[in-house]
Amino acid sequence: MLRKKIKDILNSTEYGSLVCIKGWVRSKRDSKNVAFLAINDGSIIHNIQAVVDTPNFPEDYLKDVQTGACVCITGSLVQSQGKGQSVEIQAKTIEIYGTADPETFPLQKKGHSLEFLREIAHLRPRTNTFGAILRMRHAMAFAVHKFFNDKGFVYVHTPIITGADCEGAGEMFRVTTMDLKKIPVADGQVDFSKDFFGKETSLTVSGQLNGELAAMALGEVYTFGPTFRAENSNTSRHLAEFWMIEPEVAFNELEDNMNLAEEFLKYLVKYALENCKDDLEFLNNLYDKELIQKLNFVVDNNFIRLTYTEGVEILKQSGHKFEYKVEWGTDLQSEHERYLVEKHFKKPVILTNYPKEIKAFYMKQDADGKTVRAMDVLFPGIGEIIGGSQREESYEKLLNRVRELKMNEKELWWYLDTRKFGTAPHAGFGLGFERLMLFVTGMSNIRDVIPFPRTPQNAEF
Amino acid sequence: MLRKKIKDILNSTEYGSLVCIKGWVRSKRDSKNVAFLAINDGSIIHNIQAVVDTPNFPEDYLKDVQTGACVCITGSLVQSQGKGQSVEIQAKTIEIYGTADPETFPLQKKGHSLEFLREIAHLRPRTNTFGAILRMRHAMAFAVHKFFNDKGFVYVHTPIITGADCEGAGEMFRVTTMDLKKIPVADGQVDFSKDFFGKETSLTVSGQLNGELAAMALGEVYTFGPTFRAENSNTSRHLAEFWMIEPEVAFNELEDNMNLAEEFLKYLVKYALENCKDDLEFLNNLYDKELIQKLNFVVDNNFIRLTYTEGVEILKQSGHKFEYKVEWGTDLQSEHERYLVEKHFKKPVILTNYPKEIKAFYMKQDADGKTVRAMDVLFPGIGEIIGGSQREESYEKLLNRVRELKMNEKELWWYLDTRKFGTAPHAGFGLGFERLMLFVTGMSNIRDVIPFPRTPQNAEF
Repeated sequence: MLRKKIKDILNSTEYGSLVCIKGWVRSKRDSKNVAFLAINDGSIIHNIQAVVDTPNFPEDYLKDVQTGACVCITGSLVQSQGKGQSVEIQAKTIEIYGTADPETFPLQKKGHSLEFLREIAHLRPRTNTFGAILRMRHAMAFAVHKFFNDKGFVYVHTPIITGADCEGAGEMFRVTTMDLKKIPVADGQVDFSKDFFGKETSLTVSGQLNGELAAMALGEVYTFGPTFRAENSNTSRHLAEFWMIEPEVAFNELEDNMNLAEEFLKYLVKYALENCKDDLEFLNNLYDKELIQKLNFVVDNNFIRLTYTEGVEILKQSGHKFEYKVEWGTDLQSEHERYLVEKHFKKPVILTNYPKEIKAFYMKQDADGKTVRAMDVLFPGIGEIIGGSQREESYEKLLNRVRELKMNEKELWWYLDTRKFGTAPHAGFGLGFERLMLFVTGMSNIRDVIPFPRTPQNAEF
Repeated sequence: MLRKKIKDILNSTEYGSLVCIKGWVRSKRDSKNVAFLAINDGSIIHNIQAVVDTPNFPEDYLKDVQTGACVCITGSLVQSQGKGQSVEIQAKTIEIYGTADPETFPLQKKGHSLEFLREIAHLRPRTNTFGAILRMRHAMAFAVHKFFNDKGFVYVHTPIITGADCEGAGEMFRVTTMDLKKIPVADGQVDFSKDFFGKETSLTVSGQLNGELAAMALGEVYTFGPTFRAENSNTSRHLAEFWMIEPEVAFNELEDNMNLAEEFLKYLVKYALENCKDDLEFLNNLYDKELIQKLNFVVDNNFIRLTYTEGVEILKQSGHKFEYKVEWGTDLQSEHERYLVEKHFKKPVILTNYPKEIKAFYMKQDADGKTVRAMDVLFPGIGEIIGGSQREESYEKLLNRVRELKMNEKELWWYLDTRKFGTAPHAGFGLGFERLMLFVTGMSNIRDVIPFPRTPQNAEF
């Protein structure tokens, strides 16, 4: 008999029809001559209740139908007597695919701490919380692709293994096939000519530079792939491996870039509100009572746009006592960003034109010689969710900046070539996918919004 | 003035209207008092022609409007006099964003060999061929996500950095943050406790095992991410870094798996035929005159399904002289696969139930003790395009196989747990994205269907 998904059955009104479901027992409640099973198959956060007249089944057999077991149940769809569900199944047959010994199965009926669930990341997708998060992660990833596809952007797979540390964005993971016990060293230097790629290679920290190459041909492109930071940070905001979305658009200037970022974020949040209702309600109730309200806040408000310099002035004159002092020329801390968003403007904020010293070499220099056409989008509860800029399109200015910063200009020849041949104004930004996931799920630890987190001392599963 | 994409303008019939385009000069043809510019902006393979009455512009200025330069042109949209295009632009203003010195710009008007273009992978997206390939790559990636999203699958980001070599699928790249000049060695072994993750880690060769964890909770999942092989092969079929799509479905058995694979491939090929007409026609004309015919062949034919054993019999009795001899128990070579598809059946073929010795440990064992529920989908010109199987869901049988093969069962505890707790029949497969791209573009070298190929001695750009 053809299996139906629980998601579809819960919306069915074909009472009396025979149905077949397959899924995992979330809980079992025994009463006199009857047992109530809550079955979940991952298609939706809600369980369907199967009512079992126990005398109709061998006692020994039903003993194995426990929390965690996988079963196939056929029976009639009936209107539910209990509250909380509209339909249930009056079980006729139960086939057990797999048991779960209550002595050893770690996920019993009672709630578990998020910390404990991180230790069993291979099983946590079987909980309501992680079911909801993973379905929402899918929805957000699909919304990213749909947004750009509908606009005519081209998805570009930028390389993961890279020969260049061009962003200088912190520590990188090295990639090698050399025998670590016999590393060839010559003149005190590792001889990478013996390595797989014949040179030193690392895991990428950003697809942007390659994205720019593609934008200078295809016009509008985006990347969506894994990026890596070997930062030894054990915080609730850091992952060694995370996913980034980086659009890059030829002929866009700073204002176009802000418009795109605002439209993009509103689209994603709206998509979540419209497509993830059940999961959002669950997360709203269990983790963040203001979650749905916060999402509507982003959709309903225009983002405030001001310069970094103006932002610093507001913070200085706020009279608010910050842990870190605000000073023109220094990077803003999360507390400053959140003050602007949550206290001062009560709206999402885009800060622009940051001091060039605290921003990357490729950003377009302003005429004043002090600032660059950077933009950071700041969100409530999160702080910076997007960072981007218009890019420096002048070959001379870019080359000068590379030299000022003593970067390896020989290694960057291919990037510099984009400015040498048919250069054009262009702009782009990066959205950390897990930052977005924190925002739309209301979770507070980044390890809980990626299926298998990679952090210092942790690459299990 | 708001820029329009060339794709949209070429379909416009608003003759006489003023338009603005931005893009790169593909060629310039001078005639008396008039110059013809072919402009491309990446939105479509076709150029738009801009007609320039040269006496209206300073001579010095027009000299810089050369092949490769980036320009912004405004002018009236007029019906084209020439052949090959319906509309053109009578230029009123030309702004040069970036020049391209004809002495050094490598992409001149004439055709370039694919080999040469690989040396300048940072610029090759600006050619017709790579524009077409990259737009098609986008279309195929989007079709993958749309296919699964529409069916209710959940996209799972499986980890890139992994602590386990479970597939045993060839050489792996090691990931480390240790100083290669000072690798700590104890008792002849590298001491990985000092490394970032506190253990030996590599780049993943497959997301399948993690995908199975998710399928045992969410039901229907898929991965789509980069995978890696450190194989020292300099062939037209090998990449060190490539993208894989791996669906995994709880409650599916071998036949469901075949149905899903066939439906999926037909969907993708049909999507290409319907959404990439211009690019396909270009590639058909330039690279493979039978390309579109081959794509229709896949959409129009039911895939032939037979066992490996039956396939071997056919090959043995074919009388065909193969380079490698066919023998039950050995892996089929591409020549054998292609013989079955192209000569014998003249249809795509799915071979099933391979000898267990030549397939992975996790495949479900057949009752005969000799074969496993594997399936390979074979395509014309390509050979194997999909490999998959029903998975062994019995804890005991899986554990025995792990022990038989002397695999590290302690490292696999989390994978074995899926069979210990609520196990279920399930099945899945892997589609190498670049294999698909070879098929739908008609290209013959895998380095030409990924933007920035990674191969031995090659991690430039």
